[in-house]
Amino acid sequence: MSEDKKDHDASGLDRRNFLKAGAAGIATAGAAGAGMNTAMAAPEPPGETPRINSKTGIRTAIVTDAQLNMGPFLAKEFAKRKYNLVIADVQKGLPDELRKLGAPDVLVVPGLEQEGPNNEGKPGAIQTVVDAAMEKFGGFDSVFIRTAWHGGKNILEETTENMQLSFDQNCMAVMYALQAVLPPLVEAGGGQVVVQTSATGEKPHPGLVSYSVMRAAANMMCRCAALQVADKNVCVNAVGTNFMNYPGFKHTLGADKDPKIMEALLAEIPLGRLGETSEAAHFAMALLDGHNMYTTGNFFPVAGGFNHTGM
Amino acid sequence: MSEDKKDHDASGLDRRNFLKAGAAGIATAGAAGAGMNTAMAAPEPPGETPRINSKTGIRTAIVTDAQLNMGPFLAKEFAKRKYNLVIADVQKGLPDELRKLGAPDVLVVPGLEQEGPNNEGKPGAIQTVVDAAMEKFGGFDSVFIRTAWHGGKNILEETTENMQLSFDQNCMAVMYALQAVLPPLVEAGGGQVVVQTSATGEKPHPGLVSYSVMRAAANMMCRCAALQVADKNVCVNAVGTNFMNYPGFKHTLGADKDPKIMEALLAEIPLGRLGETSEAAHFAMALLDGHNMYTTGNFFPVAGGFNHTGM
Repeated sequence: MSEDKKDHDASGLDRRNFLKAGAAGIATAGAAGAGMNTAMAAPEPPGETPRINSKTGIRTAIVTDAQLNMGPFLAKEFAKRKYNLVIADVQKGLPDELRKLGAPDVLVVPGLEQEGPNNEGKPGAIQTVVDAAMEKFGGFDSVFIRTAWHGGKNILEETTENMQLSFDQNCMAVMYALQAVLPPLVEAGGGQVVVQTSATGEKPHPGLVSYSVMRAAANMMCRCAALQVADKNVCVNAVGTNFMNYPGFKHTLGADKDPKIMEALLAEIPLGRLGETSEAAHFAMALLDGHNMYTTGNFFPVAGGFNHTGM
Repeated sequence: MSEDKKDHDASGLDRRNFLKAGAAGIATAGAAGAGMNTAMAAPEPPGETPRINSKTGIRTAIVTDAQLNMGPFLAKEFAKRKYNLVIADVQKGLPDELRKLGAPDVLVVPGLEQEGPNNEGKPGAIQTVVDAAMEKFGGFDSVFIRTAWHGGKNILEETTENMQLSFDQNCMAVMYALQAVLPPLVEAGGGQVVVQTSATGEKPHPGLVSYSVMRAAANMMCRCAALQVADKNVCVNAVGTNFMNYPGFKHTLGADKDPKIMEALLAEIPLGRLGETSEAAHFAMALLDGHNMYTTGNFFPVAGGFNHTGM
């Protein structure tokens, strides 16, 4: 194995490095007479106790949306496992609950509060959360990012306005978030990120083009990011939900008012029911708690079997 | 089968229709007491002679980029098969060559000329081509769309500017093109569309985030569009190339000047060579010539095996 690695590096033309670094990287590698990974030790498997980036000696998690959907449940899971927490857009009463559940310290970062699903389409929004986490705890280990704009029409009726909104909030927001959270994790030598996207980013939802298309974009963004930082021991995955049982989802579809719509909706779902956001949180936790550092660049649906209907 | 269809319609809750039409469609269907497809006959298989939409009685093809990459070869293939042609951004001397090869009539639509890869990011660009085709030939059967902006950086360095350019030209341009070409095909009762995207829309290219991500978006756009018009006998597919042997590709990577870059590039490609644009055109033709109307909503790589490296 190490001989293979050496041969690879000696060529200055590591296959993986060309795709990551492009022509400029190849030129540099060629000039230096070695590949780009020469100085890198391969990441090691986690031991019984997961690594800790925070200078407090306590594992620390960021949850960018602790208001809606799976964020509050994830925060509670972290609290039960004695994590320090950095949370934004926070559900009423949640910080006290997290402390009672066992979180040694809870930092609420203001400025991201909003009605409805989170929108971090502006550069710098998630950076303020990261800066606050670094200042208070000197590092963090696990990051859950949720950004969302819900809407759209079919291809024949879709509008430039919807597409731009979806681009800003379902795609660019993910880029800005990754650009904020990845550098400290790379610098620290490891960590995990889960981005909540949508099952419709993998399986087309033809009646919601702008949503489905920009969730596909966000999924690819996570995959590109994962490959970029994989040799730095940082894992990035996307969890794509659909049919979550929370008020926003039912309201968007009108299913909170019309039982016919709810009936049609349930007929789409192999499992025949809406999903609980606590279920999605339970799944995401297995990608965030540091005990499995060998899954990265993937998209995972939590959508009642929707992604495989018709197959 | 017809009994099943009837039961399905009677419920007013056709599974497919909910995803296509959303809550508004369900409400309408419920009010009418029937599904949305009641009046539709199922599409029929093509006979030995493919259908013809044009009032000239001659099959007619639109090629939006007849300047670069596979467009000129596709136009020549159509000409050999005696299609009328509607072409934009045209290679010098191509119209005469198409007539010599057998095209009864060649319509050159001005206004899309440009240096480098095509950019139809403005609404209405492809509409002018469609309008010209309808006016001259009264219909068209086959459409090849190419739009492209090439560039990007890795996730840690990617810029808002690159993302917006890629969004406009690799994603929105595809939406505008589909919105221009689909209505006449739906109205006429059938047709085929191929959109050239990129193999990096399926397999991540981590060094070119804005490109890879917006090609993933375009692929999803094609899949959503395909599902929307499938029961109208209109097929939409994406063909994603990579490593095409034409000047623009090599220049973008710097491979036209530095043999080390070309060597690194070839090491990425299982087939060990660049692909000819004529090969991509040959493949696309099988999705455009009307003899197979049972493939839609797919993404096909023409990329030397790149999409399966590492698997």
